[in-house]
Amino acid sequence: MDNFTYYAPTLFEFGRGSEEKTGMLTFLTGSKRVMIVYGQKYVKTNGHLDRIRMSLEAIGIDVVELGGVQPNPVDTLVYEGIRLGRDRNIDGLLAIGGGSVIDTAKAIAAGIPYKGDFWDFFCGKATVKEALPVGVVLTIPGSGSEGSGNAVITRSESLQKLSLRTDSILRPRFAVLDPELTYTLTAWQTACGIVDMISHILERYFSPTRGVEVTDRLAEGLLMALIDVAPKALADPTDYNARANIEWASTLAHNGLTGCGRLEDWTCHAMEHELSALYGVTHGAGLAVVFPAWMAYMAHHKPSKVAQLGRRVFGVRATDDRSAAIEAVAQFRAFFSAVLRMPLTLKALGVLEPDIDLLVAKLHEDKGSEIGVYYRLTSRDTRQIYELMLDESQRAAIAASAAASAPATA
Amino acid sequence: MDNFTYYAPTLFEFGRGSEEKTGMLTFLTGSKRVMIVYGQKYVKTNGHLDRIRMSLEAIGIDVVELGGVQPNPVDTLVYEGIRLGRDRNIDGLLAIGGGSVIDTAKAIAAGIPYKGDFWDFFCGKATVKEALPVGVVLTIPGSGSEGSGNAVITRSESLQKLSLRTDSILRPRFAVLDPELTYTLTAWQTACGIVDMISHILERYFSPTRGVEVTDRLAEGLLMALIDVAPKALADPTDYNARANIEWASTLAHNGLTGCGRLEDWTCHAMEHELSALYGVTHGAGLAVVFPAWMAYMAHHKPSKVAQLGRRVFGVRATDDRSAAIEAVAQFRAFFSAVLRMPLTLKALGVLEPDIDLLVAKLHEDKGSEIGVYYRLTSRDTRQIYELMLDESQRAAIAASAAASAPATA
Repeated sequence: MDNFTYYAPTLFEFGRGSEEKTGMLTFLTGSKRVMIVYGQKYVKTNGHLDRIRMSLEAIGIDVVELGGVQPNPVDTLVYEGIRLGRDRNIDGLLAIGGGSVIDTAKAIAAGIPYKGDFWDFFCGKATVKEALPVGVVLTIPGSGSEGSGNAVITRSESLQKLSLRTDSILRPRFAVLDPELTYTLTAWQTACGIVDMISHILERYFSPTRGVEVTDRLAEGLLMALIDVAPKALADPTDYNARANIEWASTLAHNGLTGCGRLEDWTCHAMEHELSALYGVTHGAGLAVVFPAWMAYMAHHKPSKVAQLGRRVFGVRATDDRSAAIEAVAQFRAFFSAVLRMPLTLKALGVLEPDIDLLVAKLHEDKGSEIGVYYRLTSRDTRQIYELMLDESQRAAIAASAAASAPATA
Repeated sequence: MDNFTYYAPTLFEFGRGSEEKTGMLTFLTGSKRVMIVYGQKYVKTNGHLDRIRMSLEAIGIDVVELGGVQPNPVDTLVYEGIRLGRDRNIDGLLAIGGGSVIDTAKAIAAGIPYKGDFWDFFCGKATVKEALPVGVVLTIPGSGSEGSGNAVITRSESLQKLSLRTDSILRPRFAVLDPELTYTLTAWQTACGIVDMISHILERYFSPTRGVEVTDRLAEGLLMALIDVAPKALADPTDYNARANIEWASTLAHNGLTGCGRLEDWTCHAMEHELSALYGVTHGAGLAVVFPAWMAYMAHHKPSKVAQLGRRVFGVRATDDRSAAIEAVAQFRAFFSAVLRMPLTLKALGVLEPDIDLLVAKLHEDKGSEIGVYYRLTSRDTRQIYELMLDESQRAAIAASAAASAPATA
């Protein structure tokens, strides 16, 4: 087990009716004028925004609104938020939404007190030393941003989708987790969120660090719980306990707990971010395509941890690691496809003509010539993994095109 | 799943050499003059105390010492600490030790700013509203006090052993967890600590609350990890990874994570506290006797959760709950006895002539006429559970004594 510092001081207010405590929780952060950040009209039309706004104003907190956050949130709205926030002299942020909204709020919170360009934090030019307090009312579980110090923003000009990780300065001060707010999520949104959670667990699970039994078991436990409750929430979107377990798993999957004492991989997120940036695919759906492909590649190159996962989570019985890993991948694919109704290929994801050359080039441009810690991948490896995401028909088309352009040798 | 608030703002500095960061971490709490609380001469003789004292003084922090904490810590030393702390005008505490030391430090931290008698907090007459910051350097994992808001103190006069639970005000500000500091623990100390961790998990696991899949799985995962690493630490006390997993499990078992969203039972701790208070037994060893007896009683009265535990943690295959529960108890007894070398009866615990009448009377005097939430127990039930802890020879002696004193009926 490696050395680590773990500091996760977010207060979680969990359960039915917890939305009502938003005013008091914001008050306790010391903020007097907050910017409410939100995304779709959903929070407006169903009355969330009005109720929360009123609860803040009732306690003497001024409110500034910033709506319009889109999935795969972009830098332009962050710049707008920073300008607006400085103009109106805000001293705190409240995100009402899912990961895109929370990440936008975090970027604004770090950007307002910073003299330079907030993008410096994302491209690694600067470290966040100061940030306004951020509170969260979660409406879409999945990103785990409600309990993490991380954020992901896309540069609209270059389509670079980059992550910022901080130890604790960008962890929300509080997060209101009311499972009833998630009843109206569609099956697609619910499933994408679950894949995102599973991926947050797996990115940390696939580690070269040995002697991490506690963290491995926590990760496997969260996965088993998600696999158990997911079909219940999809069958009945108002199944409170299923929604509640999913919501809490979202937070625990990404608040650092499943990464304590180990190196973390994060290759699949990097590979998916290229897909999202180039083709605008939904993050969770993209991960459902990327992760099994990466695991399938690992089954042939470093199967040990994939095999352990299969044995412990899916009860796979194969004794040799490669067979167990192959079966684990099949079980994941079956779960993603049959239960979550997720795509398993780029074609099913809507990427009909993927430019694998470009994906590989941008991936290594962003992340360096070798990526991953569980297993180091060069562009030769990542190309093969992207190719594993192709549909049979796409593979045939690519082979035909290659044959046509190859010099005749017979 | 029930509503809950989860706020666990302790900073954990984990790993080899983390002891060196004690000075800086104490400095960051803002304390200028701290009382170092410790127990046995161990921390003095091996140089811990001197090294830590020097790291504090090097950073300009004054130090006051309070040694001599004993297992099952008593109120008298707390009163002494409060007097000394007020006299010397301390503004923080640093506990170097295990649960007894940390709990003594917490009681002093709450007692110093309080106008009344600190015991008010333990007997339920008052709530902690204010406390000095407490830091921890952990040398004996088990109590989980390094990450919890709880403390247990024994009234020396009445031998009442009572718990104080706070949401977060008594959670340590930081905890230094250096697994190498635990290399010198004896097999007995190590095993007692592991039983304590397992019990902290089980007290929360045995809940009547339904729909708590995530928390159940985390609990089961921690148990499996402990069962896996325990024999390694006992076979080789300097097995770093085994020690590290045990240390981190100690914290996670009791920082509230395995109790989120559910009622918690705590009957076995209450039953053990009576044993410790009356007979001075080691807490962990007492729990090794109490928990299997309580689970065996549950196997006949409410087997469902014991059966789930057996199936998921020990791979028990029995399909009916009662058989599965009975097998789970047998597995726990085997692990406690064969691996951890713990006693399984009161006699083996050194309680040769247990006064069950007195134990039952004091238990219900402290906890009310009915205790437990997983299954409500009256004094009739708790008497039978205490009787399940008797050795065959003790049982025969009690039966003979009862027969001798019974009126002859021909």
